Amino acid sequence: MSALREINPNVRMMKDLEIGVVLKRAAGVREMLQKGKLPFTGLIDVSWGDPHTGGVKPITFVRQVLAACLYPQLISSDKLPVDARQRAQKLLACCEGGSVGSYTATKGAPQIVSSVAEFISRRDGGVPSSVENIFISPGSQWCLSNVLKLLIHHQGSAPSGVLVPVPCYDVSIRSVVELGGLSVPYYLQEEQGWEVQVEELNRAFESSKEICNPVALYIINPGNPTGHVQSRRSMQEVIRFVSEKKLFLLADEVYQDSVHGDKSQFLSYKKVLAEMGPPLSDSQELASFHSVSKGFMGECGLRGGYVELTNVEPAVMAHVYRLFSKDSCAPVLGQMALELMVNPPQPGEPSYRLYTQETQHIRSTLRHNVRRAEEVLNSLPGFSCQPVEGGAFVFPRVDLPPRAVLRAKEEGMKPDSFYCVRLLEEAGVLTGPGCQYGQKEGSSHIRFSIMTRGDTMEELLRRISCFHLQFMKEFS
Amino acid sequence: MSALREINPNVRMMKDLEIGVVLKRAAGVREMLQKGKLPFTGLIDVSWGDPHTGGVKPITFVRQVLAACLYPQLISSDKLPVDARQRAQKLLACCEGGSVGSYTATKGAPQIVSSVAEFISRRDGGVPSSVENIFISPGSQWCLSNVLKLLIHHQGSAPSGVLVPVPCYDVSIRSVVELGGLSVPYYLQEEQGWEVQVEELNRAFESSKEICNPVALYIINPGNPTGHVQSRRSMQEVIRFVSEKKLFLLADEVYQDSVHGDKSQFLSYKKVLAEMGPPLSDSQELASFHSVSKGFMGECGLRGGYVELTNVEPAVMAHVYRLFSKDSCAPVLGQMALELMVNPPQPGEPSYRLYTQETQHIRSTLRHNVRRAEEVLNSLPGFSCQPVEGGAFVFPRVDLPPRAVLRAKEEGMKPDSFYCVRLLEEAGVLTGPGCQYGQKEGSSHIRFSIMTRGDTMEELLRRISCFHLQFMKEFS
Repeated sequence: MSALREINPNVRMMKDLEIGVVLKRAAGVREMLQKGKLPFTGLIDVSWGDPHTGGVKPITFVRQVLAACLYPQLISSDKLPVDARQRAQKLLACCEGGSVGSYTATKGAPQIVSSVAEFISRRDGGVPSSVENIFISPGSQWCLSNVLKLLIHHQGSAPSGVLVPVPCYDVSIRSVVELGGLSVPYYLQEEQGWEVQVEELNRAFESSKEICNPVALYIINPGNPTGHVQSRRSMQEVIRFVSEKKLFLLADEVYQDSVHGDKSQFLSYKKVLAEMGPPLSDSQELASFHSVSKGFMGECGLRGGYVELTNVEPAVMAHVYRLFSKDSCAPVLGQMALELMVNPPQPGEPSYRLYTQETQHIRSTLRHNVRRAEEVLNSLPGFSCQPVEGGAFVFPRVDLPPRAVLRAKEEGMKPDSFYCVRLLEEAGVLTGPGCQYGQKEGSSHIRFSIMTRGDTMEELLRRISCFHLQFMKEFS
Repeated sequence: MSALREINPNVRMMKDLEIGVVLKRAAGVREMLQKGKLPFTGLIDVSWGDPHTGGVKPITFVRQVLAACLYPQLISSDKLPVDARQRAQKLLACCEGGSVGSYTATKGAPQIVSSVAEFISRRDGGVPSSVENIFISPGSQWCLSNVLKLLIHHQGSAPSGVLVPVPCYDVSIRSVVELGGLSVPYYLQEEQGWEVQVEELNRAFESSKEICNPVALYIINPGNPTGHVQSRRSMQEVIRFVSEKKLFLLADEVYQDSVHGDKSQFLSYKKVLAEMGPPLSDSQELASFHSVSKGFMGECGLRGGYVELTNVEPAVMAHVYRLFSKDSCAPVLGQMALELMVNPPQPGEPSYRLYTQETQHIRSTLRHNVRRAEEVLNSLPGFSCQPVEGGAFVFPRVDLPPRAVLRAKEEGMKPDSFYCVRLLEEAGVLTGPGCQYGQKEGSSHIRFSIMTRGDTMEELLRRISCFHLQFMKEFS
């Protein structure tokens, strides 16, 4: 019964990732490398924003506490600092039967949800946050998917539409498509540092009205892949826009801990909205997402994220609860990592010093990586990289010579996929092509993660530089 | 924009759980208990099949290995047995950057998927299992949900229908409803030990054809909540039925490790199908689900499960991959727990003895709990409990006196919800009402977990007995 033509047409609409062509080649490169048949000594995979893959070390305190939660005999061992053991004890008290193997409540263990609410309120300078509005899940994207399930439907003549930025992290768009929704692109202004512009939001909205029923706007700040950090003014404009058009605002804020620029500061949509005052602050619906995967902690594999909903009416909140309850609960260790993220060791506690050293080292490494990437890329002919103020990626534009574009076409690839494949096969650097994330017709970009060790970044930039000069020469 | 009337109508169809009324009261009981205002000394919560909540101890080897994976300094510590440390080292070698904080491949870390495939083939007496067909996710229900996304759609005049047993674990049904599918009930025959009967499957199928387009049959074996274990003959009948009706077979086999009866044996649908030979074995589509949450390991909070697909055509498999890829990957520690489940310590290894002691203790406790529950319940007037051959629950029928039914109605509750509320408030035992799982009109049941310590089970049965006799007297 499940011949291809009979499966869910929304699922059938899900396309292969554009990066797929590069990833497929990467398998071949890994094989060749093992046989010692390539002119470089190892593959540098910066196609994902995965800090530990990039050689960034996990934070000792986090791992000590979680290990003790898993194997409570460690709580009485002097191998671990006393505050790590105490914290483990406190976290285990949140678990039924004192075990991380028990289910928690649907929204997360109540004490952990409470910690998250306190963190949000602290972060936002006292704007209240209620445990009622917070749902912990295996990651921010799972949360997004549940909120989209609420908003997207098929009744009426037109599908539901969600405004999404271009470029944009592709998984968010796939969630819209999978549910039968239409993703309506609004273009970020590369020349203005990937700024969001209201005229463009208006254009996208108006153009979409004939083909869908727009229900929400998705935004990611700090940006992925752009690295842009929004100003308060820009956020206020977005809020006024969504309010006027009656759109649900989906604010992906998973990179809130990763601001690298001196001139930029992360502000949450919740705070900016609250400070705009009534009637906006009492009415505009908002979902804000955060995660343990991103930022300095980088615990992607533990799977823990949350969404906080604002101004969603109680009758609808009951349905949100039902949606999340179907998923039993988020991984308990992911929930605990979230608690450790929002409640790090404090001055005077035994683990404070090491924790501070480690996190400062990560922050300064990332900052250095960003500056070096901007510097080197902007010195290369044909490359132009907007300032990277936050997030995990650089997304430089590469102006490819017409002969390279032609060759790409001959080989059945998008120009930047062709570039990424060559960069992979000739220099052993695995990046993502811009076409994976969306870009203005005719432009080409590559995306790579800055979540690496400092020496890895230097080697990476050295390889890109050599390769690029050679490539430009070949196709000039 | 998300007023209640504007949200996704499929989501709006999701109802509150019937058990909700009992759970709400439980919060009050917990509060009263803390104030010492109740005649019993603690709440026994057996409403979920959560072994660690029930006081069952985690398996030492599993926790030692996972703790060392989280905090690799433990690998060089003599606090842990050498095989646990070696296993941790081996598992960390599956992780990018040697960290459980890295993402794995979408389907799970390749080495772990391989271990699962080898386990399946071993379990099924050599029937081949391919890594291509296995997807690891945060739990078997997430896997089920992804497979249902493939099968259920809204095109054409009728919604897709899925045949589901009554009684049935409610979350599986909610997944169907959430996607806009119709769940078509087929009744299990309580008097025949909750057997599946083909005439009933036929009746359900024929009755559904006018209101939906039936696409799949869901079955859970060993049963939840019924505790029934299917015979080979019964499974063959089901396979012939789904084949004839061109239905995808969804086999929930998460309780495969939990067979308590001497006369019963778990057989996988994959094995039975393979042994039926072509053309059935080459054509019938099958999804089989398994998990680390159920059975003796009981690591619900780690979140790890898998699905194996059989006879799904390659073009469709590509879409399954896309569906799973949207979810990044399953929690890495949940994946590792899965690896430990399918590859326990072997004779001669240092951890073998303790592992065997622990698992045998759990198995014999569960077996004892089941026998005691059957014995005590069947001795109570109005109770009748079918033999519990497998799974985590007993699901006895309670024939409630007409006056109790009337009183329930007056209080706006289903009869068995009323019974459960009284059992909770008067005896401190938290169970689930039969109406939560579905049952024949006019009958009443309760469900409770047998995944508890032996002394907890004795206390539980003592409380139920005292309460029940009092209750019957009150309403006689």
